Amino acid sequence: MNFSDKLNSAVSKNKSLVCVGLDPDPDLFTDSESVVEFNKAIIEATADLVCAYKPNFAFYEAFGAQGFSALKETADYIPKDIPVIGDAKRGDIGNTAKAYAKAIFDNFNFDAVTVSPYLGFDSVVPFIEYRNKGIFILCRTSNAGSGDFQSLNCAADGRNIPLFQMVADRASQWNKYGNVGLVVGATYPDELQLLREIYPDMLFLIPGIGAQGGDLEKAVRNGQDIGGRGIIINSSRQIIYASRGDDFATAARKAAMDLRDRINSFR
Amino acid sequence: MNFSDKLNSAVSKNKSLVCVGLDPDPDLFTDSESVVEFNKAIIEATADLVCAYKPNFAFYEAFGAQGFSALKETADYIPKDIPVIGDAKRGDIGNTAKAYAKAIFDNFNFDAVTVSPYLGFDSVVPFIEYRNKGIFILCRTSNAGSGDFQSLNCAADGRNIPLFQMVADRASQWNKYGNVGLVVGATYPDELQLLREIYPDMLFLIPGIGAQGGDLEKAVRNGQDIGGRGIIINSSRQIIYASRGDDFATAARKAAMDLRDRINSFR
Repeated sequence: MNFSDKLNSAVSKNKSLVCVGLDPDPDLFTDSESVVEFNKAIIEATADLVCAYKPNFAFYEAFGAQGFSALKETADYIPKDIPVIGDAKRGDIGNTAKAYAKAIFDNFNFDAVTVSPYLGFDSVVPFIEYRNKGIFILCRTSNAGSGDFQSLNCAADGRNIPLFQMVADRASQWNKYGNVGLVVGATYPDELQLLREIYPDMLFLIPGIGAQGGDLEKAVRNGQDIGGRGIIINSSRQIIYASRGDDFATAARKAAMDLRDRINSFR
Repeated sequence: MNFSDKLNSAVSKNKSLVCVGLDPDPDLFTDSESVVEFNKAIIEATADLVCAYKPNFAFYEAFGAQGFSALKETADYIPKDIPVIGDAKRGDIGNTAKAYAKAIFDNFNFDAVTVSPYLGFDSVVPFIEYRNKGIFILCRTSNAGSGDFQSLNCAADGRNIPLFQMVADRASQWNKYGNVGLVVGATYPDELQLLREIYPDMLFLIPGIGAQGGDLEKAVRNGQDIGGRGIIINSSRQIIYASRGDDFATAARKAAMDLRDRINSFR
Protein backbone atom coordinates (compact mmCIF):
# COMPACT_ATOMS: atom_id res chain seq x y z
CA MET A 1 0.00 0.00 0.00
CA ASN A 2 1.36 3.43 -0.82
CA PHE A 3 1.66 6.28 1.67
CA SER A 4 -1.36 8.18 0.47
CA ASP A 5 -3.67 5.16 0.76
CA LYS A 6 -2.28 4.23 4.17
CA LEU A 7 -2.76 7.80 5.37
CA ASN A 8 -6.31 7.99 4.06
CA SER A 9 -7.20 4.72 5.77
CA ALA A 10 -5.87 6.01 9.08
CA VAL A 11 -7.68 9.34 8.64
CA SER A 12 -10.95 7.49 8.02
CA LYS A 13 -10.54 4.88 10.72
CA ASN A 14 -9.53 7.29 13.48
CA LYS A 15 -11.50 10.27 12.13
CA SER A 16 -8.37 12.29 12.64
CA LEU A 17 -5.97 14.65 10.90
CA VAL A 18 -3.66 14.70 13.93
CA CYS A 19 -0.03 13.70 13.67
CA VAL A 20 1.86 13.29 16.93
CA GLY A 21 5.47 14.45 16.81
CA LEU A 22 7.58 11.99 18.78
CA ASP A 23 10.30 14.47 19.74
CA PRO A 24 11.82 13.51 23.09
CA ASP A 25 13.76 16.47 24.48
CA PRO A 26 17.27 15.12 25.25
CA ASP A 27 17.42 17.28 28.39
CA LEU A 28 14.44 15.42 29.88
CA PHE A 29 15.70 11.86 29.50
CA THR A 30 18.66 10.17 31.11
CA ASP A 31 19.16 7.61 28.35
CA SER A 32 17.72 6.26 25.13
CA GLU A 33 15.98 3.34 26.87
CA SER A 34 13.79 5.75 28.81
CA VAL A 35 12.99 7.50 25.51
CA VAL A 36 11.70 4.24 24.08
CA GLU A 37 9.58 3.53 27.17
CA PHE A 38 8.16 7.06 26.99
CA ASN A 39 7.38 6.75 23.28
CA LYS A 40 5.72 3.37 23.72
CA ALA A 41 3.41 4.81 26.38
CA ILE A 42 2.55 7.79 24.17
CA ILE A 43 1.87 5.51 21.19
CA GLU A 44 -0.35 3.17 23.24
CA ALA A 45 -2.29 6.17 24.55
CA THR A 46 -2.87 7.84 21.18
CA ALA A 47 -2.79 5.24 18.37
CA ASP A 48 -6.58 5.28 17.92
CA LEU A 49 -6.66 9.09 17.73
CA VAL A 50 -4.09 9.97 15.07
CA CYS A 51 -3.51 9.66 11.34
CA ALA A 52 0.29 9.59 11.59
CA TYR A 53 3.34 9.78 13.86
CA LYS A 54 6.35 11.94 13.07
CA PRO A 55 9.61 11.34 14.95
CA ASN A 56 12.25 14.01 14.30
CA PHE A 57 15.71 12.47 13.87
CA ALA A 58 17.47 15.25 15.81
CA PHE A 59 16.05 14.19 19.15
CA TYR A 60 17.34 10.66 18.66
CA GLU A 61 20.72 11.54 17.16
CA ALA A 62 21.38 13.57 20.31
CA PHE A 63 21.72 10.18 22.05
CA GLY A 64 24.26 8.88 19.51
CA ALA A 65 24.11 5.34 18.11
CA GLN A 66 21.79 4.26 20.96
CA GLY A 67 19.45 7.03 19.87
CA PHE A 68 19.34 5.61 16.37
CA SER A 69 18.37 2.24 17.85
CA ALA A 70 15.72 3.96 19.96
CA LEU A 71 14.28 5.56 16.83
CA LYS A 72 14.10 2.18 15.11
CA GLU A 73 12.47 0.58 18.16
CA THR A 74 9.97 3.43 18.34
CA ALA A 75 9.09 3.15 14.66
CA ASP A 76 8.70 -0.61 14.90
CA TYR A 77 6.32 -0.22 17.86
CA ILE A 78 3.85 1.94 15.93
CA PRO A 79 0.83 -0.10 14.74
CA LYS A 80 1.25 -1.09 11.08
CA ASP A 81 -1.89 0.74 9.96
CA ILE A 82 -0.60 4.15 11.14
CA PRO A 83 1.90 5.79 8.76
CA VAL A 84 5.19 7.09 10.15
CA ILE A 85 6.82 10.23 8.77
CA GLY A 86 10.58 10.40 9.33
CA ASP A 87 11.22 14.10 9.97
CA ALA A 88 14.78 14.22 8.69
CA LYS A 89 14.88 17.38 6.53
CA ARG A 90 17.76 15.87 4.58
CA GLY A 91 19.15 17.57 1.49
CA ASP A 92 22.39 16.53 -0.21
CA ILE A 93 23.76 15.86 -3.69
CA GLY A 94 22.49 12.95 -5.78
CA ASN A 95 24.62 9.98 -4.70
CA THR A 96 24.48 11.12 -1.07
CA ALA A 97 20.72 11.66 -1.17
CA LYS A 98 20.48 8.08 -2.40
CA ALA A 99 22.26 6.88 0.76
CA TYR A 100 19.92 8.95 2.94
CA ALA A 101 16.87 7.53 1.14
CA LYS A 102 18.22 4.04 1.74
CA ALA A 103 18.69 4.83 5.44
CA ILE A 104 15.22 6.28 5.88
CA PHE A 105 13.14 3.97 3.71
CA ASP A 106 15.02 0.65 3.61
CA ASN A 107 16.51 0.72 7.08
CA PHE A 108 13.85 2.44 9.18
CA ASN A 109 11.03 1.54 6.80
CA PHE A 110 9.37 4.92 7.32
CA ASP A 111 6.31 5.61 5.18
CA ALA A 112 7.28 9.20 4.43
CA VAL A 113 10.09 11.71 4.91
CA THR A 114 10.69 15.45 5.02
CA VAL A 115 13.41 16.83 2.71
CA SER A 116 15.01 20.22 2.15
CA PRO A 117 14.82 21.78 -1.32
CA TYR A 118 17.94 24.01 -1.22
CA LEU A 119 20.09 21.68 -3.34
CA GLY A 120 17.44 21.26 -6.02
CA PHE A 121 16.18 18.44 -8.18
CA ASP A 122 18.90 15.80 -7.82
CA SER A 123 18.78 16.05 -4.02
CA VAL A 124 15.07 15.21 -3.95
CA VAL A 125 14.64 12.71 -6.78
CA PRO A 126 16.28 9.73 -5.03
CA PHE A 127 13.51 10.00 -2.42
CA ILE A 128 10.71 10.52 -4.95
CA GLU A 129 11.81 7.39 -6.80
CA TYR A 130 10.47 5.39 -3.85
CA ARG A 131 7.02 5.68 -5.37
CA ASN A 132 5.15 4.13 -2.44
CA LYS A 133 6.65 6.60 0.03
CA GLY A 134 5.53 10.15 0.79
CA ILE A 135 8.00 13.00 0.24
CA PHE A 136 7.28 16.28 2.04
CA ILE A 137 9.41 19.12 0.70
CA LEU A 138 10.09 22.02 3.06
CA CYS A 139 8.25 24.99 1.59
CA ARG A 140 7.22 27.64 4.14
CA THR A 141 8.47 26.45 7.51
CA SER A 142 6.85 27.35 10.81
CA ASN A 143 9.82 29.09 12.48
CA ALA A 144 10.60 32.79 12.77
CA GLY A 145 13.73 32.57 10.59
CA SER A 146 11.77 31.10 7.69
CA GLY A 147 11.35 34.62 6.34
CA ASP A 148 15.10 35.10 5.90
CA PHE A 149 15.08 33.32 2.54
CA GLN A 150 11.71 31.65 1.95
CA SER A 151 9.82 34.92 1.55
CA LEU A 152 12.35 36.65 -0.71
CA ASN A 153 10.86 37.60 -4.05
CA CYS A 154 12.52 35.60 -6.83
CA ALA A 155 12.47 36.05 -10.57
CA ALA A 156 12.04 33.07 -12.90
CA ASP A 157 10.11 32.26 -16.08
CA GLY A 158 8.98 35.89 -16.35
CA ARG A 159 7.37 35.75 -12.93
CA ASN A 160 8.25 37.31 -9.61
CA ILE A 161 7.16 35.16 -6.69
CA PRO A 162 8.46 34.36 -3.20
CA LEU A 163 11.01 31.57 -2.92
CA PHE A 164 8.61 29.28 -1.03
CA GLN A 165 6.15 29.54 -3.92
CA MET A 166 8.95 28.78 -6.38
CA VAL A 167 9.74 25.70 -4.30
CA ALA A 168 6.07 24.66 -4.38
CA ASP A 169 6.05 25.21 -8.13
CA ARG A 170 9.06 22.96 -8.68
CA ALA A 171 7.74 20.39 -6.20
CA SER A 172 4.51 20.12 -8.17
CA GLN A 173 6.53 19.61 -11.37
CA TRP A 174 8.57 16.86 -9.70
CA ASN A 175 5.40 15.18 -8.46
CA LYS A 176 5.03 12.76 -11.36
CA TYR A 177 4.08 9.83 -9.13
CA GLY A 178 1.69 11.79 -6.90
CA ASN A 179 3.80 11.16 -3.80
CA VAL A 180 5.13 14.69 -3.19
CA GLY A 181 3.68 17.01 -0.53
CA LEU A 182 4.72 20.26 1.11
CA VAL A 183 5.63 21.37 4.62
CA VAL A 184 3.77 24.60 5.36
CA GLY A 185 3.71 26.11 8.84
CA ALA A 186 0.45 26.93 10.63
CA THR A 187 2.20 30.15 11.64
CA TYR A 188 1.78 31.40 8.04
CA PRO A 189 -1.96 30.97 7.33
CA ASP A 190 -2.00 33.36 4.35
CA GLU A 191 0.72 31.37 2.61
CA LEU A 192 -1.21 28.21 3.41
CA GLN A 193 -4.30 29.63 1.74
CA LEU A 194 -2.34 30.79 -1.30
CA LEU A 195 -0.71 27.38 -1.75
CA ARG A 196 -4.04 25.55 -1.37
CA GLU A 197 -5.56 27.74 -4.06
CA ILE A 198 -2.72 27.02 -6.46
CA TYR A 199 -2.35 23.32 -5.59
CA PRO A 200 -5.83 22.01 -4.77
CA ASP A 201 -4.70 18.36 -4.60
CA MET A 202 -1.34 18.47 -2.86
CA LEU A 203 -0.88 17.08 0.63
CA PHE A 204 0.34 19.58 3.25
CA LEU A 205 2.17 18.61 6.41
CA ILE A 206 1.45 21.43 8.86
CA PRO A 207 3.62 21.98 11.94
CA GLY A 208 3.52 25.10 14.10
CA ILE A 209 0.38 24.89 16.20
CA GLY A 210 0.72 24.69 19.98
CA ALA A 211 4.12 25.69 21.34
CA GLN A 212 4.93 27.59 18.15
CA GLY A 213 1.74 29.66 18.28
CA GLY A 214 0.02 28.89 14.96
CA ASP A 215 -3.75 29.46 14.80
CA LEU A 216 -5.44 26.07 14.51
CA GLU A 217 -8.71 27.25 13.02
CA LYS A 218 -6.99 29.23 10.26
CA ALA A 219 -4.60 26.35 9.55
CA VAL A 220 -7.48 23.92 9.05
CA ARG A 221 -9.77 26.28 7.13
CA ASN A 222 -7.01 27.61 4.87
CA GLY A 223 -5.18 24.35 4.41
CA GLN A 224 -7.86 21.70 3.88
CA ASP A 225 -8.74 20.54 0.40
CA ILE A 226 -12.24 20.50 -1.05
CA GLY A 227 -12.95 17.16 0.65
CA GLY A 228 -11.90 18.45 4.08
CA ARG A 229 -8.66 16.48 3.94
CA GLY A 230 -5.25 17.08 2.35
CA ILE A 231 -3.66 18.23 5.60
CA ILE A 232 -1.75 16.56 8.40
CA ILE A 233 -1.66 18.73 11.52
CA ASN A 234 1.37 17.98 13.63
CA SER A 235 1.63 18.58 17.33
CA SER A 236 4.62 17.54 19.40
CA ARG A 237 5.22 19.27 22.72
CA GLN A 238 1.55 20.15 23.30
CA ILE A 239 0.69 16.45 23.32
CA ILE A 240 3.71 14.51 24.54
CA TYR A 241 4.41 16.98 27.37
CA ALA A 242 0.76 17.72 28.19
CA SER A 243 1.79 16.63 31.67
CA ARG A 244 5.30 16.30 33.05
CA GLY A 245 4.02 13.96 35.77
CA ASP A 246 3.36 10.22 35.92
CA ASP A 247 0.05 10.79 34.19
CA PHE A 248 1.81 11.95 30.99
CA ALA A 249 0.24 9.22 28.83
CA THR A 250 -3.31 9.93 30.02
CA ALA A 251 -2.71 13.64 29.57
CA ALA A 252 -1.30 13.02 26.06
CA ARG A 253 -4.40 11.01 25.19
CA LYS A 254 -6.65 13.81 26.36
CA ALA A 255 -4.63 16.45 24.48
CA ALA A 256 -4.65 14.38 21.28
CA MET A 257 -8.41 13.82 21.57
CA ASP A 258 -9.06 17.53 22.18
CA LEU A 259 -6.92 18.47 19.20
CA ARG A 260 -8.57 15.90 16.96
CA ASP A 261 -12.03 17.12 17.89
CA ARG A 262 -11.15 20.80 17.51
CA ILE A 263 -9.67 20.15 14.07
CA ASN A 264 -12.76 18.21 13.02
CA SER A 265 -15.00 21.04 14.17
CA PHE A 266 -13.26 23.34 11.66
CA ARG A 267 -13.43 20.95 8.67
CA MET B 1 41.83 25.47 20.41
CA ASN B 2 39.17 26.73 18.02
CA PHE B 3 38.46 25.26 14.59
CA SER B 4 40.22 27.98 12.66
CA ASP B 5 43.45 27.63 14.65
CA LYS B 6 43.36 23.86 14.46
CA LEU B 7 42.81 24.02 10.71
CA ASN B 8 45.63 26.50 10.18
CA SER B 9 48.02 24.34 12.19
CA ALA B 10 47.16 21.31 10.06
CA VAL B 11 47.49 23.34 6.84
CA SER B 12 50.95 24.51 7.92
CA LYS B 13 52.19 21.20 9.27
CA ASN B 14 51.08 19.11 6.29
CA LYS B 15 51.46 21.89 3.71
CA SER B 16 48.03 20.92 2.48
CA LEU B 17 44.60 22.30 1.66
CA VAL B 18 43.24 18.81 0.98
CA CYS B 19 40.27 17.43 2.86
CA VAL B 20 39.50 13.75 2.39
CA GLY B 21 35.81 12.91 2.28
CA LEU B 22 35.27 9.68 4.20
CA ASP B 23 32.17 8.60 2.29
CA PRO B 24 31.97 4.80 2.19
CA ASP B 25 29.49 3.75 -0.51
CA PRO B 26 27.01 1.41 1.25
CA ASP B 27 26.87 -0.78 -1.88
CA LEU B 28 30.58 -1.59 -1.56
CA PHE B 29 30.62 -2.76 2.05
CA THR B 30 28.96 -5.75 3.62
CA ASP B 31 28.76 -4.24 7.12
CA SER B 32 29.74 -1.27 9.24
CA GLU B 33 32.79 -3.07 10.72
CA SER B 34 34.36 -3.28 7.27
CA VAL B 35 33.65 0.45 6.83
CA VAL B 36 35.63 1.23 9.98
CA GLU B 37 38.54 -0.97 8.85
CA PHE B 38 38.53 0.74 5.46
CA ASN B 39 38.43 4.21 7.00
CA LYS B 40 41.26 3.42 9.42
CA ALA B 41 43.47 2.30 6.53
CA ILE B 42 42.62 5.47 4.57
CA ILE B 43 43.33 7.67 7.60
CA GLU B 44 46.67 5.96 8.30
CA ALA B 45 47.66 6.38 4.66
CA THR B 46 46.76 10.06 4.38
CA ALA B 47 46.93 11.76 7.81
CA ASP B 48 50.22 13.53 7.02
CA LEU B 49 48.90 14.85 3.70
CA VAL B 50 45.61 16.54 4.62
CA CYS B 51 44.28 19.55 6.51
CA ALA B 52 40.93 17.94 7.40
CA TYR B 53 38.68 14.91 7.07
CA LYS B 54 35.01 15.15 6.21
CA PRO B 55 32.74 12.16 6.78
CA ASN B 56 29.25 12.57 5.33
CA PHE B 57 26.57 11.27 7.71
CA ALA B 58 24.46 9.74 4.92
CA PHE B 59 26.95 6.97 4.18
CA TYR B 60 26.92 5.89 7.81
CA GLU B 61 23.19 6.28 8.45
CA ALA B 62 22.65 3.86 5.56
CA PHE B 63 23.98 1.17 7.97
CA GLY B 64 21.54 2.13 10.74
CA ALA B 65 22.59 2.37 14.39
CA GLN B 66 25.76 0.37 13.65
CA GLY B 67 26.63 2.98 11.05
CA PHE B 68 26.38 5.71 13.67
CA SER B 69 28.81 3.75 15.84
CA ALA B 70 31.11 3.33 12.84
CA LEU B 71 31.06 7.09 12.30
CA LYS B 72 32.01 7.68 15.93
CA GLU B 73 34.81 5.08 15.75
CA THR B 74 36.08 6.67 12.55
CA ALA B 75 36.06 10.17 14.02
CA ASP B 76 37.83 8.98 17.18
CA TYR B 77 40.56 7.33 15.08
CA ILE B 78 41.54 10.56 13.33
CA PRO B 79 44.69 12.10 14.86
CA LYS B 80 43.78 14.88 17.29
CA ASP B 81 45.66 17.55 15.34
CA ILE B 82 43.57 17.05 12.18
CA PRO B 83 40.15 18.74 12.28
CA VAL B 84 37.07 16.73 11.38
CA ILE B 85 34.13 18.29 9.55
CA GLY B 86 30.81 16.50 10.07
CA ASP B 87 29.08 16.79 6.71
CA ALA B 88 25.51 16.70 8.00
CA LYS B 89 23.78 19.51 6.07
CA ARG B 90 21.25 19.75 8.88
CA GLY B 91 18.63 22.51 8.94
CA ASP B 92 15.68 22.54 11.33
CA ILE B 93 13.81 24.94 13.61
CA GLY B 94 15.49 26.38 16.72
CA ASN B 95 14.92 23.79 19.44
CA THR B 96 15.51 20.95 16.96
CA ALA B 97 18.67 22.55 15.60
CA LYS B 98 19.89 22.66 19.20
CA ALA B 99 19.46 18.87 19.45
CA TYR B 100 21.38 18.39 16.18
CA ALA B 101 24.19 20.64 17.41
CA LYS B 102 24.36 18.61 20.58
CA ALA B 103 24.57 15.39 18.54
CA ILE B 104 27.29 16.67 16.23
CA PHE B 105 29.46 18.66 18.63
CA ASP B 106 28.91 17.09 22.07
CA ASN B 107 28.40 13.51 21.01
CA PHE B 108 30.70 13.11 18.00
CA ASN B 109 32.96 15.95 19.05
CA PHE B 110 33.38 17.10 15.45
CA ASP B 111 35.38 20.29 14.93
CA ALA B 112 33.03 21.66 12.28
CA VAL B 113 29.73 20.98 10.56
CA THR B 114 27.87 21.76 7.35
CA VAL B 115 24.36 23.25 7.71
CA SER B 116 21.57 24.18 5.32
CA PRO B 117 20.33 27.80 5.27
CA TYR B 118 16.77 27.25 4.00
CA LEU B 119 15.14 27.67 7.44
CA GLY B 120 17.02 30.87 8.22
CA PHE B 121 18.64 32.38 11.26
CA ASP B 122 17.22 30.33 14.12
CA SER B 123 18.15 27.07 12.36
CA VAL B 124 21.83 28.09 12.18
CA VAL B 125 22.42 30.01 15.42
CA PRO B 126 22.43 26.98 17.76
CA PHE B 127 25.46 25.73 15.82
CA ILE B 128 27.19 29.13 15.67
CA GLU B 129 26.86 29.44 19.43
CA TYR B 130 29.49 26.73 19.72
CA ARG B 131 32.15 29.39 19.22
CA ASN B 132 35.09 27.01 18.96
CA LYS B 133 33.45 25.03 16.18
CA GLY B 134 33.37 25.80 12.46
CA ILE B 135 29.99 26.24 10.75
CA PHE B 136 29.91 25.88 6.96
CA ILE B 137 26.65 27.15 5.50
CA LEU B 138 25.57 25.67 2.16
CA CYS B 139 25.81 28.51 -0.34
CA ARG B 140 26.42 27.42 -3.94
CA THR B 141 26.55 23.65 -3.93
CA SER B 142 28.49 21.56 -6.42
CA ASN B 143 25.61 19.55 -7.89
CA ALA B 144 23.66 20.09 -11.10
CA GLY B 145 20.39 20.85 -9.27
CA SER B 146 21.96 23.68 -7.30
CA GLY B 147 20.75 26.07 -9.99
CA ASP B 148 17.10 25.24 -9.32
CA PHE B 149 16.92 27.70 -6.43
CA GLN B 150 20.42 28.95 -5.53
CA SER B 151 20.85 30.94 -8.74
CA LEU B 152 17.39 32.55 -8.74
CA ASN B 153 17.56 36.32 -8.62
CA CYS B 154 16.12 37.59 -5.35
CA ALA B 155 15.08 41.06 -4.29
CA ALA B 156 15.97 42.38 -0.84
CA ASP B 157 17.22 45.64 0.67
CA GLY B 158 16.87 47.38 -2.71
CA ARG B 159 19.20 44.89 -4.33
CA ASN B 160 18.67 42.10 -6.82
CA ILE B 161 21.14 39.27 -6.33
CA PRO B 162 21.11 35.48 -6.69
CA LEU B 163 19.87 33.48 -3.71
CA PHE B 164 23.32 31.99 -3.02
CA GLN B 165 24.73 35.52 -2.70
CA MET B 166 21.90 36.46 -0.37
CA VAL B 167 22.79 33.43 1.73
CA ALA B 168 26.45 34.48 1.79
CA ASP B 169 25.36 37.98 2.78
CA ARG B 170 23.31 36.73 5.73
CA ALA B 171 26.02 34.24 6.71
CA SER B 172 28.55 37.06 6.93
CA GLN B 173 26.13 39.02 9.13
CA TRP B 174 25.68 35.98 11.40
CA ASN B 175 29.45 35.52 11.63
CA LYS B 176 29.94 37.51 14.82
CA TYR B 177 32.39 35.00 16.30
CA GLY B 178 34.39 34.45 13.10
CA ASN B 179 33.45 30.78 12.95
CA VAL B 180 31.14 30.81 9.91
CA GLY B 181 32.27 29.66 6.46
CA LEU B 182 30.56 28.81 3.18
CA VAL B 183 30.22 25.71 1.04
CA VAL B 184 30.92 26.69 -2.58
CA GLY B 185 31.28 24.06 -5.31
CA ALA B 186 34.37 23.90 -7.54
CA THR B 187 31.89 23.33 -10.35
CA TYR B 188 30.95 27.04 -10.14
CA PRO B 189 34.30 28.89 -10.40
CA ASP B 190 32.74 32.24 -11.34
CA GLU B 191 30.58 32.22 -8.22
CA LEU B 192 33.64 31.25 -6.21
CA GLN B 193 35.51 34.26 -7.58
CA LEU B 194 32.59 36.59 -6.90
CA LEU B 195 32.24 35.40 -3.32
CA ARG B 196 35.97 35.68 -2.67
CA GLU B 197 35.90 39.29 -3.92
CA ILE B 198 33.01 40.19 -1.63
CA TYR B 199 34.22 38.18 1.39
CA PRO B 200 38.03 38.31 1.39
CA ASP B 201 38.35 36.68 4.82
CA MET B 202 35.70 33.97 4.85
CA LEU B 203 36.63 30.30 4.82
CA PHE B 204 35.29 28.28 1.86
CA LEU B 205 34.75 24.54 1.92
CA ILE B 206 35.00 23.48 -1.73
CA PRO B 207 33.59 20.14 -2.91
CA GLY B 208 33.11 19.17 -6.54
CA ILE B 209 36.53 18.39 -7.97
CA GLY B 210 37.23 14.85 -9.20
CA ALA B 211 34.13 12.72 -9.78
CA GLN B 212 31.93 15.83 -10.02
CA GLY B 213 34.11 17.47 -12.69
CA GLY B 214 35.11 20.79 -11.09
CA ASP B 215 38.26 22.47 -12.47
CA LEU B 216 40.92 22.30 -9.75
CA GLU B 217 43.09 25.14 -11.01
CA LYS B 218 40.15 27.54 -11.25
CA ALA B 219 38.86 26.48 -7.84
CA VAL B 220 42.19 27.24 -6.19
CA ARG B 221 42.95 30.46 -8.07
CA ASN B 222 39.43 31.85 -7.69
CA GLY B 223 38.84 30.64 -4.16
CA GLN B 224 42.07 31.29 -2.27
CA ASP B 225 42.43 34.33 -0.08
CA ILE B 226 45.25 36.86 -0.32
CA GLY B 227 47.49 34.61 1.78
CA GLY B 228 46.94 31.57 -0.45
CA ARG B 229 44.69 29.97 2.14
CA GLY B 230 41.01 30.34 3.07
CA ILE B 231 39.95 27.23 1.16
CA ILE B 232 39.51 23.57 1.99
CA ILE B 233 39.41 21.43 -1.13
CA ASN B 234 37.46 18.25 -0.58
CA SER B 235 37.93 15.06 -2.51
CA SER B 236 36.11 11.85 -1.67
CA ARG B 237 35.77 9.22 -4.36
CA GLN B 238 38.90 10.27 -6.29
CA ILE B 239 41.00 9.46 -3.23
CA ILE B 240 39.27 6.72 -1.27
CA TYR B 241 38.44 4.71 -4.39
CA ALA B 242 41.66 5.50 -6.29
CA SER B 243 41.98 1.73 -6.43
CA ARG B 244 39.26 -0.85 -5.83
CA GLY B 245 41.92 -3.52 -5.16
CA ASP B 246 43.88 -4.52 -2.06
CA ASP B 247 46.27 -1.62 -2.69
CA PHE B 248 43.47 0.92 -2.01
CA ALA B 249 45.34 2.59 0.87
CA THR B 250 48.57 3.00 -1.09
CA ALA B 251 46.59 4.30 -4.05
CA ALA B 252 44.69 6.72 -1.77
CA ARG B 253 48.00 8.01 -0.41
CA LYS B 254 49.30 8.61 -3.91
CA ALA B 255 46.07 10.33 -5.00
CA ALA B 256 46.05 12.56 -1.90
CA MET B 257 49.71 13.49 -2.44
CA ASP B 258 49.11 14.27 -6.11
CA LEU B 259 46.12 16.42 -5.24
CA ARG B 260 47.99 18.25 -2.48
CA ASP B 261 50.89 19.01 -4.78
CA ARG B 262 48.68 20.12 -7.66
CA ILE B 263 46.75 22.46 -5.36
CA ASN B 264 49.98 23.91 -3.98
CA SER B 265 51.28 24.53 -7.52
CA PHE B 266 48.27 26.82 -8.11
CA ARG B 267 48.54 28.81 -4.86
